[in-house]
Amino acid sequence: MSNIQKHKTTVAIYGQSYVIMGTESPSHVRLVGSLVDDKMREISYKNPTLDLSKLAVLTAVNAVNDYLKMKDQLDHLQTELLKEKD
Amino acid sequence: MSNIQKHKTTVAIYGQSYVIMGTESPSHVRLVGSLVDDKMREISYKNPTLDLSKLAVLTAVNAVNDYLKMKDQLDHLQTELLKEKD
Repeated sequence: MSNIQKHKTTVAIYGQSYVIMGTESPSHVRLVGSLVDDKMREISYKNPTLDLSKLAVLTAVNAVNDYLKMKDQLDHLQTELLKEKD
Repeated sequence: MSNIQKHKTTVAIYGQSYVIMGTESPSHVRLVGSLVDDKMREISYKNPTLDLSKLAVLTAVNAVNDYLKMKDQLDHLQTELLKEKD
């Protein structure tokens, strides 16, 4: 059994409600939801014929791509920091 | 006009084909696609009643959440590196 508190937060993304369960604070979950909503609207604006599921999959592709770029930067900085500490 | 080469890569995500246009290499796009596919299958396994668009939106929520965590770590490391350089 864990003592970590779980929150249940409802967020609106692209006109639909989602209940998100997790240890993150409701305000963090709302921020994540609003970023996903923004990304979906941006991709939909550029590709107006996409159906909802394709739009959502491409939004996930976009987010994972951003994640990998950020991870590369982090790996690079960690190497640099190790050199500085030597 | 830009000289940056654009690639057109087809990836299979959750049984559906997507054509992704971008400056990233086809191997990078395939990696991103396979990570999205993995995440969708993981979320679907835990929530077998979700329809495709909700599953994809929750995958995007998950990816943006991972992105923000990574960004926090990056910001923290950048501050640390600046201190080391002082």
